[in-house]
Amino acid sequence: MSKNRKAAIQFFQKNRARFIEEFVDIIAIPSISTESEHKNDMQRCADWLAQKLDDLGMDNASVYPTSGEPIVYGESLTAGRDAPTVLIYGHYDVQPVDPVELWDSDPFSADIRGDNLYARGATDMKGQLMASLFALEAIKENGGLPVNVKFLFEGEEEIGSPSLDGFIADHRELLTCDLVLNPDTGMLAPDLPTITYALRGLVYFELRIYGPEHDLHSGMFGGVVNNPAQVLCELVAGMHDEQGKITLPGFYNNVRSIDDGERRELARLPLDEAFYLKQSGVPSLWGESEFSPVERVGARPTLEVNGLLSGFTGEGSKTVLPSSAMAKISCRLVPDQEPEEVHQQMLAYLSANAPNTVRYELELISVGSTAISDRESTGVKAMSEALNTVWGKRPVFRREGGTIPVVAMFKDYLDVESVNTGFSLPDDNLHAPNEKIHLPTWERGIEAIIHFFYNL
Amino acid sequence: MSKNRKAAIQFFQKNRARFIEEFVDIIAIPSISTESEHKNDMQRCADWLAQKLDDLGMDNASVYPTSGEPIVYGESLTAGRDAPTVLIYGHYDVQPVDPVELWDSDPFSADIRGDNLYARGATDMKGQLMASLFALEAIKENGGLPVNVKFLFEGEEEIGSPSLDGFIADHRELLTCDLVLNPDTGMLAPDLPTITYALRGLVYFELRIYGPEHDLHSGMFGGVVNNPAQVLCELVAGMHDEQGKITLPGFYNNVRSIDDGERRELARLPLDEAFYLKQSGVPSLWGESEFSPVERVGARPTLEVNGLLSGFTGEGSKTVLPSSAMAKISCRLVPDQEPEEVHQQMLAYLSANAPNTVRYELELISVGSTAISDRESTGVKAMSEALNTVWGKRPVFRREGGTIPVVAMFKDYLDVESVNTGFSLPDDNLHAPNEKIHLPTWERGIEAIIHFFYNL
Repeated sequence: MSKNRKAAIQFFQKNRARFIEEFVDIIAIPSISTESEHKNDMQRCADWLAQKLDDLGMDNASVYPTSGEPIVYGESLTAGRDAPTVLIYGHYDVQPVDPVELWDSDPFSADIRGDNLYARGATDMKGQLMASLFALEAIKENGGLPVNVKFLFEGEEEIGSPSLDGFIADHRELLTCDLVLNPDTGMLAPDLPTITYALRGLVYFELRIYGPEHDLHSGMFGGVVNNPAQVLCELVAGMHDEQGKITLPGFYNNVRSIDDGERRELARLPLDEAFYLKQSGVPSLWGESEFSPVERVGARPTLEVNGLLSGFTGEGSKTVLPSSAMAKISCRLVPDQEPEEVHQQMLAYLSANAPNTVRYELELISVGSTAISDRESTGVKAMSEALNTVWGKRPVFRREGGTIPVVAMFKDYLDVESVNTGFSLPDDNLHAPNEKIHLPTWERGIEAIIHFFYNL
Repeated sequence: MSKNRKAAIQFFQKNRARFIEEFVDIIAIPSISTESEHKNDMQRCADWLAQKLDDLGMDNASVYPTSGEPIVYGESLTAGRDAPTVLIYGHYDVQPVDPVELWDSDPFSADIRGDNLYARGATDMKGQLMASLFALEAIKENGGLPVNVKFLFEGEEEIGSPSLDGFIADHRELLTCDLVLNPDTGMLAPDLPTITYALRGLVYFELRIYGPEHDLHSGMFGGVVNNPAQVLCELVAGMHDEQGKITLPGFYNNVRSIDDGERRELARLPLDEAFYLKQSGVPSLWGESEFSPVERVGARPTLEVNGLLSGFTGEGSKTVLPSSAMAKISCRLVPDQEPEEVHQQMLAYLSANAPNTVRYELELISVGSTAISDRESTGVKAMSEALNTVWGKRPVFRREGGTIPVVAMFKDYLDVESVNTGFSLPDDNLHAPNEKIHLPTWERGIEAIIHFFYNL
């Protein structure tokens, strides 16, 4: 191990307490991108990060306004033209905290219990974002950066990154790089460093069914007026057949199949039925029986109801025939499905199946493309070695069920692949009450990022 | 027409001005049962009525306290054991007046404009209640009562009659009678005297589906965990078949069929497709095609979704796989369906159809029995002839889609049927600002009640 590398690792270990303090500071900013009352907190969080980049000695540390939430940028290009340039991506926005009563501690006041730090954003992904900054600081303070770096932090990942696409398109030169480090994917277990080479895409809809002009008395109109809530249930129910296949017309036409080699690779992952049963707490699993659970989550598309709302939902009874009903519905997509193609399939489904007793509206809320990376690239190999150094074992390679639209954007606009890794664990309660990060794993992650930069 | 009957009608006509003064007096008491600041007004209104019964020469005029609002009772049993005994039901409580700024006159200061008297409670139902009292006074002062009468006035109809059930159960002997006169149902038009001979029952459920232990990320678990919102939609969708029939096992077994005579009678009602389209504003009607709209609303049972709630329902998107989903579901029942029987059918449906990938709970929230009166009974025939005498045409016979719990209570505890009629009109703004009663119709109603008692 080189002297600088060794010193950087020691620097990180010495400064651990201060790093956690700074982590706690950024967690305290409730940067919930989907709730408009947190608009000021979004700006505050972006300013905090730009200041942090400036303090780290990054050049051109800036907050770029967008039509949505601000984007933070900073760079250090002092390693020379022959050194590679790494764009480090992160998002500073977090999910809402409801139902807040299920939290055991204040979501925005980090609470360390045992080895875990509990807070909204702890693992998704303020913890991962800060890990990159701390790794960079450790390297910079111990011999300087061996590579050029650019930071790009957005505030809209949890709402589908609506501004990022245009920003990257408009700033191709600023963002030019050789590869992207994206630490927004997780690990399968504390002892299983993980590189995610494929991501599912997303298309997110709001479907609204309109019936009578106003809520009606169910006694006076029940039997002659089609109930919008019932119509919604019928339409949603019809989106899957009895085998769990999605019925949108043409939905599977462009789904890339997985070959035997990839199936064997995926079968090595510890994501068996028992794993998913334990993680979810359901009495039994569900889905396409000819695919294993890990294949269903990573390599197969899905359709989920994310929310339902209609009529009277308070305590007790109200005999209303509601005037409207709403469902949030999203599809996870796999290569080579395109979100717009699935949007058209949903419209075709509704056109074929919605009865003429109601009106409906389908709003396209957000989209994310699918992505897949070469497992033999320089960046992936540098990360693989780094993880091997820290954990003492080669990482596993996985297909991720989630969506990181930005990975597709970098490919589309900058023609670069991303190294997708991260140090969140399956039980980190991502998007749920009591989100947390496992601090020993997080610290190993910081060390791994230090090694990654030296390995490039 | 007998001498007494003629004299009673003339007495009413001569005393019209005084009757309206007394009507205005009771209207001035703001007896809003749902607003606790009117507690004293409730007592005042009950006392006023007991005094009125006493002034009329009724025996045992009393105010019975309950855990809610007082119940008023009075009787005259001087007609002898061979004469029928009629229990006259009424409620003295009224709806709130908000939004009060939409009233053109003080809600509790009766204002006569043209043929209408405007005030809260004018039509629902102080006007109907006073009509019975004035009719009784006219008969009593002109040869005495040909029947025995008992008065029962409650103060909680607008809040679901929570005390009445127990009161009737505890006072079966006091309330023993041959039939009930309930003037709390309305007319379809000023020239259409109406008898409501059937009311639908109700059984109201909350169905809750539980899947994962907490909300999951739809990317990480979509494809292996059955979505409770989707399961709820599938279960709800399956409760109707493609013909709009309800699929709960045995649901129609005890539905009393309607014969050709009844169909002809119902077809006389001005409740055609155009009426329901206009009232609801839907693009087209729905329901069992082999039944007319008025048959579907009155004589057929229905199943309605009254509310849906699951997952994320705010603005924008949240890619959650919700841990639970809830539906409020109610059935309108017709004779001879029993609420508890339908409860068991719903449980059987769920047991047969809910997948083993979720848990479910069915809560029974409320029930109301069906009611039907024999159109050939003495009471209904007496009222039918009375209406025919006054309006010069046979009344229409209507099945009401809603529920009037008190009608079922009298059937259940006293084993008597009710003659349901009343003189409110569709444009009387019941429960709304500018409630009114059409005085010429009200006066015809008083005459009709006079005839009714002589006809028995």
